[in-house]
Amino acid sequence: MNVNLRGRTSAFRTVTFDSENNSVQLIEQRLLPHAFKIVSTRNFRETARAITDMVVRGAGAIGATAAFGLAQGVLAYRGRDPKNFSAHIATVYQTLAAARPTAVDLVNALNEVRRQMSRGQTVAEQQSLALAAAEAFANDDVRHCQAIGRHGAKLIRNGLRIMTHCNAGWLAFVDVGTATAPLYVAQGQGKRFHVYCDETRPRSQGATLTAWELAQQKISHQVIADNAAGHLMQRGKIDLVIVGSDRVLGRTGEVANKIGTYTKAVLAARHGIPFYVAIPLSTIDWKLKRGFDIPIEERHESEVLGAWGVISTPHTALRSPRTARRVYVRVANPASGAVNPGFDVTPPELITGLITPAGIFKPADIWRRRNELGHAG
Amino acid sequence: MNVNLRGRTSAFRTVTFDSENNSVQLIEQRLLPHAFKIVSTRNFRETARAITDMVVRGAGAIGATAAFGLAQGVLAYRGRDPKNFSAHIATVYQTLAAARPTAVDLVNALNEVRRQMSRGQTVAEQQSLALAAAEAFANDDVRHCQAIGRHGAKLIRNGLRIMTHCNAGWLAFVDVGTATAPLYVAQGQGKRFHVYCDETRPRSQGATLTAWELAQQKISHQVIADNAAGHLMQRGKIDLVIVGSDRVLGRTGEVANKIGTYTKAVLAARHGIPFYVAIPLSTIDWKLKRGFDIPIEERHESEVLGAWGVISTPHTALRSPRTARRVYVRVANPASGAVNPGFDVTPPELITGLITPAGIFKPADIWRRRNELGHAG
Repeated sequence: MNVNLRGRTSAFRTVTFDSENNSVQLIEQRLLPHAFKIVSTRNFRETARAITDMVVRGAGAIGATAAFGLAQGVLAYRGRDPKNFSAHIATVYQTLAAARPTAVDLVNALNEVRRQMSRGQTVAEQQSLALAAAEAFANDDVRHCQAIGRHGAKLIRNGLRIMTHCNAGWLAFVDVGTATAPLYVAQGQGKRFHVYCDETRPRSQGATLTAWELAQQKISHQVIADNAAGHLMQRGKIDLVIVGSDRVLGRTGEVANKIGTYTKAVLAARHGIPFYVAIPLSTIDWKLKRGFDIPIEERHESEVLGAWGVISTPHTALRSPRTARRVYVRVANPASGAVNPGFDVTPPELITGLITPAGIFKPADIWRRRNELGHAG
Repeated sequence: MNVNLRGRTSAFRTVTFDSENNSVQLIEQRLLPHAFKIVSTRNFRETARAITDMVVRGAGAIGATAAFGLAQGVLAYRGRDPKNFSAHIATVYQTLAAARPTAVDLVNALNEVRRQMSRGQTVAEQQSLALAAAEAFANDDVRHCQAIGRHGAKLIRNGLRIMTHCNAGWLAFVDVGTATAPLYVAQGQGKRFHVYCDETRPRSQGATLTAWELAQQKISHQVIADNAAGHLMQRGKIDLVIVGSDRVLGRTGEVANKIGTYTKAVLAARHGIPFYVAIPLSTIDWKLKRGFDIPIEERHESEVLGAWGVISTPHTALRSPRTARRVYVRVANPASGAVNPGFDVTPPELITGLITPAGIFKPADIWRRRNELGHAG
């Protein structure tokens, strides 16, 4: 998608591969929204560290980074001995797999590249297949997001006011994103609309990443406090809500997503406002039987008790801080603790539809229509 | 209420008067929760400035400060000429009335003191009546809050998990507070319970002021992100919600309060969790006919786009920042704007009861029972 750099607009993907230098190129997401920088990793260990250190985050983006990291490691092999080569592949695989232990997409991506590689006979053949598989993985991610965008854009009419939660944008994927995809496709179709990005405390991904994406793309938007969602809906100022998801249960249609999603869904249902969840098919979990059993990550209390930002002044120079260096400030009472669940689960009756690459589905229908949604068997 | 200072617990009111030095003593609320300090104003102009600069905030606390400020100005008069004295009173009154133009309680307090004063004949008599009236105003504020606490404490059983929003605590009144009053009275009755203070973005009064109050009072509590309220209710972790209000419509039972109140009320109703609003009778507006007509203050976008806090580190020394100096950090994307409504309106069907000094009332009943609630005529 677009990034504005010193008055010029350039297109970027979140993750790309530079075959000439055998390096993975990543947008340094920890500097956003205050600075934009591309980092190159020189070897698979650096790529694994970039995943661990959250230079890159988001399901699709982590998957593609791992896929490229595996190809990068494999391509760096200089020998011809197949046995040594196997040991080398195992090292690369394990290093990358351990980079973020709970990321399902990371392991799926590595397995896919390894599976494709195994069709080759020689070291050179396998190296070439690894790179092709990683490129295909990244391109598929983009194609799926574009398909989500095409289906979702049909929901967007001129003048609509759309609310988002958290960031399921192109920064979380290779490009285009999921919850943002309908916005970008609709904009490409010449439609005009306004987006309210809710802040998404405690980590503020809406105020930082989604707002940054929309600003780069020149889409009309404003940040709101999470607390303002109900009021804006009550006053008729929200027409549509689109969010992403970390896991959708194929058997029940329940949606796990960033903390606060459930709250917005309850509010939208009360006001009769359509509430959509945009997901790639890999997000559907066909095994788990009850949303109540989805493990809810309990995160560090410091996220709730403070905030990360760039020192500034509230009323002047708001939009041009002198530095991009973020600091942590303690906001809450020093002697108080916090509880910080990272996700919540929204029941299917609050969700108007799931926007997938295969079309829009009612959550209650997905088990019955599982063959259309890539369920194996 | 209690404040812990270097290991000792002392009792304070938010506002008191020192007759020996003719000064108003205020808790410097802008330093909370990071430092505790009492400031003394030497004359009515300093008192007015303290109101303007928000050294003191909250309906009851502002009212009492203005009442004492008027007494302070009146007592400083050294002449005996009644005509000059009248001009002096007018100056004091106008200076204080202009300190925060939209605060209804401020003008009500000034009018009450002036009315009582007018019963006196001599300058000395009027001076003495002014101070007595200001003291009575402050004591009434405390007595009303204590009555709210006695009625509300009946709702609190051992083991309850109670959610609050914003700060309608003793810092906003002379003492005890409204939404916090049932907690303090229940604690005094030996009951044990846990409070979830929601952060209350964008100004974070829950994380700062309410959490500070509860910590001083040694009441078990944790801060939560506003986004976590729905999830905690869904998982059965909230038994009761108590909030304050800026204005309750006597004709409809609608409740205007800090932005986000409506959202929490919608969530509580969905989960069958009792939702109470604690108010002094002065909060009831008997004139306005529709909640939709309550003006919703649109506040500066910088509140949503950043946060105020003390520079710290997230994982170490969280609870002992080295300084109490707060800085503003820009959190959101530098090129993005925000919309920042300060209040919202909750309809009566979402409110279980209004906890008042006169007892607990269903919002739908207050017009019919208006005589019990101090409606004149």
